[in-house]
Amino acid sequence: MKRLMLLGASGSIGTQTIDVVLQHPQDFVLVGISVGHRIDVLKQILSKVQVKYVCVAEKQDRQVLEAQYPDITFYDGDEGLLALAKKDEYDLLVNALVGFVGFLPTLHAIESGHSIALANKETLVVGGELIKKAIQKHHVSLYPIDSEHSAIFQALQGNKNYQIKRLIITASGGSFRKLSRDDLKDVTVSQALAHPNWTMGAKITIDSADMMNKGFEVIEAHYLFDIDYDDIDVVMHPESVVHSMVEYVDHSIIAQLGAPDMRVPIQYALTWPDRYPLHLEKPLDLTQLSGLHFDKPDTDRFPLLALAYKAGKKGGNLPAVMNAANEVANAAFREEKIPFLMIEDIVISAVNSVGYQPIETVQDLIDANEYGRKFALQQIEGVNE
Amino acid sequence: MKRLMLLGASGSIGTQTIDVVLQHPQDFVLVGISVGHRIDVLKQILSKVQVKYVCVAEKQDRQVLEAQYPDITFYDGDEGLLALAKKDEYDLLVNALVGFVGFLPTLHAIESGHSIALANKETLVVGGELIKKAIQKHHVSLYPIDSEHSAIFQALQGNKNYQIKRLIITASGGSFRKLSRDDLKDVTVSQALAHPNWTMGAKITIDSADMMNKGFEVIEAHYLFDIDYDDIDVVMHPESVVHSMVEYVDHSIIAQLGAPDMRVPIQYALTWPDRYPLHLEKPLDLTQLSGLHFDKPDTDRFPLLALAYKAGKKGGNLPAVMNAANEVANAAFREEKIPFLMIEDIVISAVNSVGYQPIETVQDLIDANEYGRKFALQQIEGVNE
Repeated sequence: MKRLMLLGASGSIGTQTIDVVLQHPQDFVLVGISVGHRIDVLKQILSKVQVKYVCVAEKQDRQVLEAQYPDITFYDGDEGLLALAKKDEYDLLVNALVGFVGFLPTLHAIESGHSIALANKETLVVGGELIKKAIQKHHVSLYPIDSEHSAIFQALQGNKNYQIKRLIITASGGSFRKLSRDDLKDVTVSQALAHPNWTMGAKITIDSADMMNKGFEVIEAHYLFDIDYDDIDVVMHPESVVHSMVEYVDHSIIAQLGAPDMRVPIQYALTWPDRYPLHLEKPLDLTQLSGLHFDKPDTDRFPLLALAYKAGKKGGNLPAVMNAANEVANAAFREEKIPFLMIEDIVISAVNSVGYQPIETVQDLIDANEYGRKFALQQIEGVNE
Repeated sequence: MKRLMLLGASGSIGTQTIDVVLQHPQDFVLVGISVGHRIDVLKQILSKVQVKYVCVAEKQDRQVLEAQYPDITFYDGDEGLLALAKKDEYDLLVNALVGFVGFLPTLHAIESGHSIALANKETLVVGGELIKKAIQKHHVSLYPIDSEHSAIFQALQGNKNYQIKRLIITASGGSFRKLSRDDLKDVTVSQALAHPNWTMGAKITIDSADMMNKGFEVIEAHYLFDIDYDDIDVVMHPESVVHSMVEYVDHSIIAQLGAPDMRVPIQYALTWPDRYPLHLEKPLDLTQLSGLHFDKPDTDRFPLLALAYKAGKKGGNLPAVMNAANEVANAAFREEKIPFLMIEDIVISAVNSVGYQPIETVQDLIDANEYGRKFALQQIEGVNE
């Protein structure tokens, strides 16, 4: 019986994690969950699973819930997330939070001796160095939930790191992959949210449309698998069937394929090195596809991908500034405060506006994040004045 | 330093094995080789590598060579192959022989305590049960060289047999994949030998054109990986880029991809569980392909594939009869004694003409092989009377 702490239970990854848990009641138990503001989703979850701890974003929500669920211990806010992460009585933290807010709970869970199933890619984008050191110090493991990194993780089984020639991360190209830069000037939020292959949360769907997400994944792969940026390639693959690949020194390529269903990578992160049966409504049938296609990415068309390589290679504060500016700009686009292409402008300007600073402490990271957020907010204010 | 005994050194797999050995002179040494009738190729090989033992098909050739190469110990005939297989002073037998003749050297090498890198698929098609028992008894390993089985072997690394949902063997469809059965009536030997993707020996290229080869591979996979026939699927994949796949119980599919170059699976069989760098002239570049396609096989179009499933499931003498009739019919077609479609007629009639007999001894197998050969020869004589 594996005891899970699930942060971000009300989001897309969170609810799919609960589906996986419910498919294997003999194997997994949820010790605690966090849900942010989605109290309606929390109540649905609590009608299906018993948990000991719940964290919500707001103190008011907590107080109401405490009266309704006397058997559950409630927490609130970022402090509540850390309290859950630091608990002793679980085996694996599933971090399905979105954004920089996911970083500290990961770090505290590691420091409390817990292994992590990581869907929160910002954790590694902003704090890869710190997380890596903490993992080594506390002898815990980090299992990727992102479909691309799970694919690479699966393709690496039974092989050694020194046998890798390169990682090949596939990219659908997102909602606007068929549009030119000129076409992008007037795209709307609802167009951006209509991903052709995957049903995901809003933030990551926008990050997919400008390929900031793929850039994050390159940095994430660098830290997860300890591979140089020059040995991580991105290949356009519009069908999202091959989730990513590893090419070895003998030119053999191992790929992981499947339906675009996040429950597969979620479950693998929970069961590794084992695999459990998983019920999917539509497992992949290759013979029903019209074909699989692969192409080189156009970094002129997707400048944030090139930016992520640059920021990742330089390291230090730059990935954190990039991520923070993107979090703010992504949200501003979703709130219709800025046009789509301005996300890129803001993120690129933020990175270019700052010099390299090493990240040695958590405070360095918080400062870099604050800088990026403020820079982006100022740019957005300038537009909306 | 791994010491290799290479049977079938002058064929397509044999010469490519020697290329792999020459790329890694610090890691591999050839102890002995067999070459059949190709004395010209033998001399080319001996100009590049030093070996202690050589087996040729004919006694006359042996006598001439003994005078020319006084430092080498020569053998001849099937007895010579067995003498090489039984030697103590090597680590791995690379069996690149073609046809039933490959069976006994494999068995004797296993009984002498040697592990096998197996390109001779007929070994498992005809004698899977006997080979499996011998492997268990002598605690040796069998590494597949066939590209499809190497792909599955690679896709299985780090996973357990009970996690497998099904094996997916890819099939190019061979030289005539675009032709209807009506079109097949008048095809010539040179048309059949023009495989669209792979450069292989003549026998296997014909076996690919009627998909007898794919049927053999299903039986081979059954024995290599201990998987029920109902859990082995064949999928048409005209590009021969995905060499085969494993679908696991969680619907995750692991595939191995690469250029159609047999040196990749050959080397993996020699280096497993390690991988060594390998120089290929044209490694796979997915972004240069127009697309990858997959389709269900048409067993009306390719009846020998359906026959192989049937013979494999029934087991006993039937696969050996099928293989023997095919060896004779395949050769007769190449000698222009029978039309292409008559290969199928002969093989199907041979299997249908015989009742199930268990295979308990090597003699049972030799008898089944003899029966299949005689049946096919009689049919061919009937045509040519």
